[in-house]
Amino acid sequence: MTVNILFAAKAERWDSYRTPLTAALRAAGIDFDLRTDFAPADVDYIVYAPNSTVQDFTPYTRLRAVLNLWAGVEDVVDNDTLHVPLARMVDHGLTQGMIEWVTGHVLRHHLEMDKHLFGQDGVWRTHVPPLAQDRPVTILGMGELGRACAATLAGLGFPVTGWGRTARTVPDVTTCHGANGLDAALSQAQILVLLLPDTPATANILSADTLAMLPRGAHILNPGRGTLIDDTDLLAALDSGHIARATLDVFRTEPLPANHPYWAHPKVTVTPHIASATRETSASRVIAENIRRGEAGEPFLNLVDRSLGY
Amino acid sequence: MTVNILFAAKAERWDSYRTPLTAALRAAGIDFDLRTDFAPADVDYIVYAPNSTVQDFTPYTRLRAVLNLWAGVEDVVDNDTLHVPLARMVDHGLTQGMIEWVTGHVLRHHLEMDKHLFGQDGVWRTHVPPLAQDRPVTILGMGELGRACAATLAGLGFPVTGWGRTARTVPDVTTCHGANGLDAALSQAQILVLLLPDTPATANILSADTLAMLPRGAHILNPGRGTLIDDTDLLAALDSGHIARATLDVFRTEPLPANHPYWAHPKVTVTPHIASATRETSASRVIAENIRRGEAGEPFLNLVDRSLGY
Repeated sequence: MTVNILFAAKAERWDSYRTPLTAALRAAGIDFDLRTDFAPADVDYIVYAPNSTVQDFTPYTRLRAVLNLWAGVEDVVDNDTLHVPLARMVDHGLTQGMIEWVTGHVLRHHLEMDKHLFGQDGVWRTHVPPLAQDRPVTILGMGELGRACAATLAGLGFPVTGWGRTARTVPDVTTCHGANGLDAALSQAQILVLLLPDTPATANILSADTLAMLPRGAHILNPGRGTLIDDTDLLAALDSGHIARATLDVFRTEPLPANHPYWAHPKVTVTPHIASATRETSASRVIAENIRRGEAGEPFLNLVDRSLGY
Repeated sequence: MTVNILFAAKAERWDSYRTPLTAALRAAGIDFDLRTDFAPADVDYIVYAPNSTVQDFTPYTRLRAVLNLWAGVEDVVDNDTLHVPLARMVDHGLTQGMIEWVTGHVLRHHLEMDKHLFGQDGVWRTHVPPLAQDRPVTILGMGELGRACAATLAGLGFPVTGWGRTARTVPDVTTCHGANGLDAALSQAQILVLLLPDTPATANILSADTLAMLPRGAHILNPGRGTLIDDTDLLAALDSGHIARATLDVFRTEPLPANHPYWAHPKVTVTPHIASATRETSASRVIAENIRRGEAGEPFLNLVDRSLGY
């Protein structure tokens, strides 16, 4: 029997999800009808954005589950009209995307690609960079994302040091922690990656003091949080030449204002908060798998415990 | 007892090897004197470039071994005055360097980094590229370098297809071979990496015919040989938009002439034959290890069989 799936989200989401979600549902072997409008009584599943027009679930009398398009469910979990299972999005693409952004930009800085990309002037310069084994990388933040990136970079041959608030053991990674460990973590780092959470303790952790602990010519990558960097101090360190180059994906104000000095600085690359973003393709697979499970009578993935609120 | 090591090569080699070789010898625990001039009868080892001024080994009466600075020994292997072991350079940095260049530039093309690097105009564009798992990569050439790069890219999550002249099995890589396999290898490739050797059969393997087998918007990386590409056909495919972008490290004529259209083409990045180059640091470690072995009475690494000539 055909499964009726209502896509309830803003129009631009439909534009980006229609093709990958259709492909994922087909690949899951589901006989489905996927649309943005149905008579409520005909709907089996809702693929749901909490900011959609669907706020009263009462008329959806045969609804089997609501599948949230993103991780946060705070705007739906207290909806009293919802009496069916609610699943949040757990997209393994988030971690994988971070690994790809960090690995790609570490290799870009390591291989000194910008010299070639911005130096296509007909002059053959045969300077060869060192191997990864001679390019120490330090990651501040040994949470799930930091550990995943550290493991990948170590696998490519980089000597990786990981620093966090508390002591941790990570295979193939030199770890240190606490205020005393920070100098050791920074003093050898030719490339520094910031993957700390945004807490009062991490605000402006990269400041004039800690920038001075880095060796001259170090490179900075920030795919973590905009609050980790004292922007004025970083700009000063770039201008003095102490820091060679920075690639920044997150900022105190996003979108980064067009007149912010980072945009125009010749040693800064801005990327628009894309290091870790939900990918429609992988998220669609998660939704299709949950509908397959519902139809097969198997338990749903990533169910929200509505008493806990997440 | 101090080991006397003569560095016999052109002056520019001494400039680049002096520091890393000194460091490697120290790290190997050798008590040494490293110089570019000695009384021949005092020399224990020669770190050797066949184009150096040392061509008669007769006066080097206590010489224990000659350690060649590069892999090719054709200009020293027939020297009748040489009666001690001759080792050639086997630098694992060559393969590692290729892995780093290929992985870095595959990730650059995959993450569409150039859009950001050349688009720092203050406009926040949140387009997110697909994950590696949705970006098929094909490598032409399944020799040592091709297999090593394929394994690394597969480890990062890319679906990798490898093509070669003969059938091969490579873990986690879809392989195909021969003329019949080429269409299959190319038809899904969003990023194509050329790592074939230079033979009559591989000349111009990337031509109008094979470029047409690639999906529209494919990217080309050539760290292999300049002869693999019909340059006129590639430029036409870039101009038509069928090929999105190319990064080329090797050329029919090197250095690539300053007036070659590749330099100025907005969709081409030229790198100056650096994808795989001997690194002084890793090569110095190989030399130091061989001297350590000689002093410890252990067999030398990478000895040349002078009857075979390599």
